[in-house]
Amino acid sequence: MAVFQNQIRVSTRGRCHVLDITPEVARVVGASGVDAGIVNISGIGSTLGITTLEFEPGCVSDLQRALELIAPSNTNYAHNARWHDENGYAHLRSALVGTAKSFPISGGRLALGTWQQIVLCDFDDRPRERQIVVTVIGEKPGS
Amino acid sequence: MAVFQNQIRVSTRGRCHVLDITPEVARVVGASGVDAGIVNISGIGSTLGITTLEFEPGCVSDLQRALELIAPSNTNYAHNARWHDENGYAHLRSALVGTAKSFPISGGRLALGTWQQIVLCDFDDRPRERQIVVTVIGEKPGS
Amino acid sequence: MAVFQNQIRVSTRGRCHVLDITPEVARVVGASGVDAGIVNISGIGSTLGITTLEFEPGCVSDLQRALELIAPSNTNYAHNARWHDENGYAHLRSALVGTAKSFPISGGRLALGTWQQIVLCDFDDRPRERQIVVTVIGEKPGS
Repeated sequence: MAVFQNQIRVSTRGRCHVLDITPEVARVVGASGVDAGIVNISGIGSTLGITTLEFEPGCVSDLQRALELIAPSNTNYAHNARWHDENGYAHLRSALVGTAKSFPISGGRLALGTWQQIVLCDFDDRPRERQIVVTVIGEKPGS
Repeated sequence: MAVFQNQIRVSTRGRCHVLDITPEVARVVGASGVDAGIVNISGIGSTLGITTLEFEPGCVSDLQRALELIAPSNTNYAHNARWHDENGYAHLRSALVGTAKSFPISGGRLALGTWQQIVLCDFDDRPRERQIVVTVIGEKPGS
Repeated sequence: MAVFQNQIRVSTRGRCHVLDITPEVARVVGASGVDAGIVNISGIGSTLGITTLEFEPGCVSDLQRALELIAPSNTNYAHNARWHDENGYAHLRSALVGTAKSFPISGGRLALGTWQQIVLCDFDDRPRERQIVVTVIGEKPGS
């Protein structure tokens, strides 16, 4: 059994920028040498989300539109009133979508569907440098 | 420490069919021999969700009605326009609910509440054969 | 590699009471002696949620308001009609937010952002005593 941990750093445009981070996660899984186990992908911060999506412009746009209805990007938030911030909607979206997800590793690879990508959603109201911690736990072959 | 991985295969009717998969997950947990640890339940695909629910017809119906408001099952989605698909709402629901969850194993059993079942929600617009990967990581007694 | 498991017990006021449980989770992580790994935080029951939030009154109030729109705390639920209960909205919120989350442990500490706290949301319609299972899996230094 082994633990392998690495960080991914991503530059985003903010404002519900949705980025496919599957290749970076797959690279960490490959480098871990783990054959069977679990990988946890966790964004650091309270204005981002991690989920899965068919990463194509239509699904991205549909997600952005839905979040605009659930948590509109206006300034009518108690968080804004209290702190003179403008990103209350980003905090709300992050709490609803969640900042971390875990997936299986099987045969040395991320076990996802063909049309299922791991995405980082940056809900904040400005470009950000984001840090994502990828943690692999599992068995290495022959150990 | 051990990793134990198995697949569950489920036939669904699609269209927000909600199925209790707790017995199948509990069977994998039992077969693993793990006494204390974590189990990850991950659906393969981008038009399904995994969550917990009191599995009774009222709660199932309430969840279906809420998702119909959040992500209506009409064809007005950018995903549909781009790909001539009709399941844009299913992709959206999957991204919002999430396709994977992890729960503790304690005393050799899934640590859930009495009224808390693990459910697969198939959001797609047709019947599907679904594959769910169950991964157990933890300690076996006496090892 | 080691597994360390402990329970947190929390008294809540119900009705979307949001409580910061980060200190209690951090205490379990510290007691585990694990340097690098994953911690799973899982609420037992089907009328609660676990997520992350900047824990300040504004963000808490924004989350409560949003959930009131997504799953209003009225009695118009199929669960209520069937069981003469009044907490159908609490079951719905729990299924949407999720009852468990996993986060990385890095350098012996919970890897979260400065403004990112782990919160228990008690959606039920009355005060409750809640049980949260915290499971740490990872490597101890020197072992």
